[in-house]
Amino acid sequence: MHYYPRSIRNAIRSISRLPGIGEKTAERLAMHILRTPRDEAEQLARSILELKAKTLLCRRCFGLSDAPVCSICSNTGRDQRLLCVVEQPADMVSLEKSGAFNGLYFVLGGTLSPMDGIGPGDLRIRELATRIEEGKVREIILATSTTVEGESTAAYLSDTLKRYPLKLSRIASGVPIGGDLKYVDQVTLRRAMEGRRDITQRS
Amino acid sequence: MHYYPRSIRNAIRSISRLPGIGEKTAERLAMHILRTPRDEAEQLARSILELKAKTLLCRRCFGLSDAPVCSICSNTGRDQRLLCVVEQPADMVSLEKSGAFNGLYFVLGGTLSPMDGIGPGDLRIRELATRIEEGKVREIILATSTTVEGESTAAYLSDTLKRYPLKLSRIASGVPIGGDLKYVDQVTLRRAMEGRRDITQRS
Repeated sequence: MHYYPRSIRNAIRSISRLPGIGEKTAERLAMHILRTPRDEAEQLARSILELKAKTLLCRRCFGLSDAPVCSICSNTGRDQRLLCVVEQPADMVSLEKSGAFNGLYFVLGGTLSPMDGIGPGDLRIRELATRIEEGKVREIILATSTTVEGESTAAYLSDTLKRYPLKLSRIASGVPIGGDLKYVDQVTLRRAMEGRRDITQRS
Repeated sequence: MHYYPRSIRNAIRSISRLPGIGEKTAERLAMHILRTPRDEAEQLARSILELKAKTLLCRRCFGLSDAPVCSICSNTGRDQRLLCVVEQPADMVSLEKSGAFNGLYFVLGGTLSPMDGIGPGDLRIRELATRIEEGKVREIILATSTTVEGESTAAYLSDTLKRYPLKLSRIASGVPIGGDLKYVDQVTLRRAMEGRRDITQRS
């Protein structure tokens, strides 16, 4: 590191703080930025600053947004009766990419995790109740992860939300598409078996 | 990409322009920066700007520096009689890391490459001559790469510089340390054979 002038050392140090980027890669990136036209480097720096400054949480779904209400929540073409509850904004992005859902979202902000001291009060459960009480939602889809924490959060929510006259559903779990049965873990296989669907041909 | 608000899209686009960073990684890095404390993100952005603004070329060796003369050129503890000619500032860093050299450097700024239209006038050959004419240098070590271009640049330089009363040397080429002979290419093996050194025990 001391082979470089201070300006380069500082850049290498900042860049190598990013996840998955070691000192070698940071060095390579810094050298690239040095060779790059000045306006491109400035654009990179500016986009990092704006990323922090301009990204908000949507006040309806608590997903990532650059306006008070995000483009999904303000899209009247989406099914306002379906509300999909996810853990994090990134999960919302994954579901959007899949194109499998045309309703609205609600970001819980995490999962229940007694080990880490995260209880119901730390998640947006009250906000979710308020949202339901607005009266437009007909079905809640619990799309938390299928981890221990995600499952127990879904169980907790289904218990808490049963006082509302709503359909409650949970995303299916089972063998992932492209999965080879002999490499799938036993818990997943048991789930896949329990959750088997009738495909009897009816004529 | 359109799943993200514009501020995040811009950051992903800028980050994914870096070499070896695809859109997936850029997405992951952008999400990390979003979660990171504000001052850390600002430090990253600032270090990128300073990298461009504060890094200069040393006016003695043309290596990277943040002062008019770099720390190597201004270090009187180094052997002022040895001048190692390299292609790029990065080569200088590699040699420094190896700890194998305690003299001074001179960065040529590339290699001769008629295919790309790079001739002697595009390299710092006149500057090198001026440096030699100062009279302190006793030995020039040609440490250009062992590529076709690097070799021909070294050949051109040895021809051009023979008018000076100097020792001229070329870094050794051969089998790299840790190299398994059966995987070493034939040109390297031929070089290693030609360049063999006498290790006869003398008593």
